[in-house]
Amino acid sequence: MIRKISKNEIDKMDFLYRNNLMNAITGYKSANLIATKDHEGLSNLAIFSSVTHFGSNPPVIGFVLRPNTVLRNTYENIKSSGEYTINHVNSDIISDAHHTSAKYPPEVSEFNYTNLSEEYHPCTNAPFVKEAVIKIAMKFHEEIPVKINGTILILGTVQKLILPDSIIAEDGFVDLNTAKTVAITGLDAYHQALQINRLPYARPKDKPFEIQD
Amino acid sequence: MIRKISKNEIDKMDFLYRNNLMNAITGYKSANLIATKDHEGLSNLAIFSSVTHFGSNPPVIGFVLRPNTVLRNTYENIKSSGEYTINHVNSDIISDAHHTSAKYPPEVSEFNYTNLSEEYHPCTNAPFVKEAVIKIAMKFHEEIPVKINGTILILGTVQKLILPDSIIAEDGFVDLNTAKTVAITGLDAYHQALQINRLPYARPKDKPFEIQD
Repeated sequence: MIRKISKNEIDKMDFLYRNNLMNAITGYKSANLIATKDHEGLSNLAIFSSVTHFGSNPPVIGFVLRPNTVLRNTYENIKSSGEYTINHVNSDIISDAHHTSAKYPPEVSEFNYTNLSEEYHPCTNAPFVKEAVIKIAMKFHEEIPVKINGTILILGTVQKLILPDSIIAEDGFVDLNTAKTVAITGLDAYHQALQINRLPYARPKDKPFEIQD
Repeated sequence: MIRKISKNEIDKMDFLYRNNLMNAITGYKSANLIATKDHEGLSNLAIFSSVTHFGSNPPVIGFVLRPNTVLRNTYENIKSSGEYTINHVNSDIISDAHHTSAKYPPEVSEFNYTNLSEEYHPCTNAPFVKEAVIKIAMKFHEEIPVKINGTILILGTVQKLILPDSIIAEDGFVDLNTAKTVAITGLDAYHQALQINRLPYARPKDKPFEIQD
């Protein structure tokens, strides 16, 4: 049976039901740990499902913050240091990655409450997640306030990519299946992925309704 | 072997190599068809991998447009009509969904060059994709220009959700595996997903380094 749900019904839903539903209906989401450091050297780690490609040249990545929540550390550290790292969640570290969403007080490093470890590279003062297979050093570029709901879009530029050479194809494509990167749906569901295929660059057909070979 | 790629190397890469790499390193992406109609009734259909959850209350969804490309129809139709639909790509319609990225002239409807069909509901004048399992009617809210690369973030509010009742759990969670929704990596790779698990709401541990039971 097909269910039709109006905006009016969504607005009246129970908080958690609406949160589960609205977080699921956009499709599969990226699963990334964002790591930062404050001016006193305290590290912070938080999971995000909103990391999104914004452009390749220059290499721009965005993610969405709700500044009035537990994620405030991430925001403040990015604003004060100008640096952060994005680390892919893989299937071996799901439990620890998910645990970073727990509401710890600001003086606590999530690295100390999980089995995830800090790793450092000369390209940035921000910590990387050692257990992540794909790691990205980011430089803060801009914050864009989203007035309708008080969220903030954080845009940054890629400073360094760190990943196994073996998962990069000749044409630059990256095999996330082999990297065991996971996808998120809703607030709390983690998925492994299996590539169906890569499709060739799409070119217009000569005539309508043709079946492409 | 671990490869470290600097921003300087990314900036100097061949166009396609950089595009493949940068589109892959953010993780799994949503796969959605956005359908619109112009003021003369001509429909347009285009695939996007940047549809992102921005909030549940009000229900806000965003996606990123490059207005100087084939996607211009989508932008102009959304601006003039104020309406669009978001339709999940499932594994049965990958080829046709991918084909909507071909550069057709503006006077062509991609519905006529694929096996995807228009479907209409009273909630909006924009077409839905009949073959999609999960469909969302959207109302345009705001466009936010992203200065660093000339892209545009389009924000809209959910007006209606249309999906099978059977894939909605008691708590509002939606089973995208059963809906056969696919995920995208890079520019052209489509993936099926398999849920590993749903994790409980994360609560702080009493002590560092504890193993959560």
